[in-house]
Amino acid sequence: MPILPITTVTDLRRVTDGFKSKQQTIGVVPTMGALHEGHLSLVRESLKNCDQTIVTIFVNPTQFGPDEDLRKYPRPPGDDLTMLEALGVEHVFAPADNEVYPSGFSTMIDPPAVAGKLEGEFRPTHFSGVATVVLKLLNMTQADVAFFGQKDFQQVLVVQTMVADLNVNVEIRVCDIVRESDGLALSSRNVYLSDQEREIALTLSRTLSHVEEMIHEGQTDGFEIVTEMRQMLIDGGVTSVDYAVVADPKTLNTAETISLPVVALIAAHVGETRLIDNRIITL
Amino acid sequence: MPILPITTVTDLRRVTDGFKSKQQTIGVVPTMGALHEGHLSLVRESLKNCDQTIVTIFVNPTQFGPDEDLRKYPRPPGDDLTMLEALGVEHVFAPADNEVYPSGFSTMIDPPAVAGKLEGEFRPTHFSGVATVVLKLLNMTQADVAFFGQKDFQQVLVVQTMVADLNVNVEIRVCDIVRESDGLALSSRNVYLSDQEREIALTLSRTLSHVEEMIHEGQTDGFEIVTEMRQMLIDGGVTSVDYAVVADPKTLNTAETISLPVVALIAAHVGETRLIDNRIITL
Repeated sequence: MPILPITTVTDLRRVTDGFKSKQQTIGVVPTMGALHEGHLSLVRESLKNCDQTIVTIFVNPTQFGPDEDLRKYPRPPGDDLTMLEALGVEHVFAPADNEVYPSGFSTMIDPPAVAGKLEGEFRPTHFSGVATVVLKLLNMTQADVAFFGQKDFQQVLVVQTMVADLNVNVEIRVCDIVRESDGLALSSRNVYLSDQEREIALTLSRTLSHVEEMIHEGQTDGFEIVTEMRQMLIDGGVTSVDYAVVADPKTLNTAETISLPVVALIAAHVGETRLIDNRIITL
Repeated sequence: MPILPITTVTDLRRVTDGFKSKQQTIGVVPTMGALHEGHLSLVRESLKNCDQTIVTIFVNPTQFGPDEDLRKYPRPPGDDLTMLEALGVEHVFAPADNEVYPSGFSTMIDPPAVAGKLEGEFRPTHFSGVATVVLKLLNMTQADVAFFGQKDFQQVLVVQTMVADLNVNVEIRVCDIVRESDGLALSSRNVYLSDQEREIALTLSRTLSHVEEMIHEGQTDGFEIVTEMRQMLIDGGVTSVDYAVVADPKTLNTAETISLPVVALIAAHVGETRLIDNRIITL
């Protein structure tokens, strides 16, 4: 039987109250739809680890800036449901905008300090929107565990810090980045890329691999690394670089002399498409 | 056996997990201590209506402005515990500041629009602090029901709106204002008042009674009412009036021509003590 998405908080609460009364654990995978293998890896983790799994599909308007791609963000709901059904997902929550943000809604999360760096410099209201919708979805679904991808590295930090700061009763699990065989990190926004842009987009993951090599070969000069990252991205044909840094994985602070572990993070535009990627580098 | 307060979130979670596993309902009464009969009326409601009751005692620094009375706020913990014990309370949560706000804490609630009026104009960061600590305490205690006093009328609106906006799984119950026999609303800050100031403080409740009379006698001109309120407060000897208004009880909007129900709200200084009081006026 095809999945019939739950669309109201009231209906969802009825379902989750049932799970709770049976002491079942609830795993939640928050998505904006346009699902790919990255999302599906999170769903599999939830199915494996939790008694019940709820996948949420909601393109959250509050995390898009005024000049961003909210309107054209891909929304293929039929495909999404088919993919989830094939995995054995039974519960999908896909609310309309006014169910999540009814008239008069006005409480937002002022996100933790780590939200102000990197993405926060280029997308100043982004993480307030992310933190608010994630907290709402966690409360709506009464989640015990929530699954996020390392692809959105800073988002994971923001969510983990918010959950700790606000004492939310949920465990955040982070799953590895899923890549195409040639290294491109999966992203719903990859569909925007032309064939030529897709080739250029490979520069992001190649640059991260190069950074890892440099560091493993003994390079510890943060400035040298970052200069080379930026040069490699430009040489590879990206249109512009928002940031290319090597930072502390807990704080996202950068340092003149790096000490492992670090995370290398890139945000760059390829044509009109903004892509992000990252790699954790350990000993 | 005297109550031994729980002081850490970990210990509290162990206790509340036990309640949850037995499907017991948890009532929470958030307080800043310095308990009086107003708080105790909330505690009795919780004891009557919930399987388990937790009283929290925490003087929340984030809701005090830099020029306010955080340092001198009354903190008589021994008395508080004796009073709670006499009522049959078994669970008190009294964390230290750094348990609620550990080093690195940085996520705050940007409270709903209704927080910007009245108190919000005079205490601009107050409701952000209130909303943040209330959300944290609700999450820490895993409350099913939380009890608040109508004395802090706007606070109740802020909390109710936040809970709705963020889909928090808790019911907010509001209990009537408790007054001395001469009409003075109970407040932990009443201990600051000299005998003479205590007499002047009665002007607040007398003014609210007068407003109710005026309205029941047919007065509908909002400006006339507010002018008379302010005059009566000044004539009664208050040092200054922060606000004296008649407003819609849902939005706190004021109107030229009032239509019931309304809430009359006052904040005034008596000497160095700031007092608030309110009255809901219905047909």
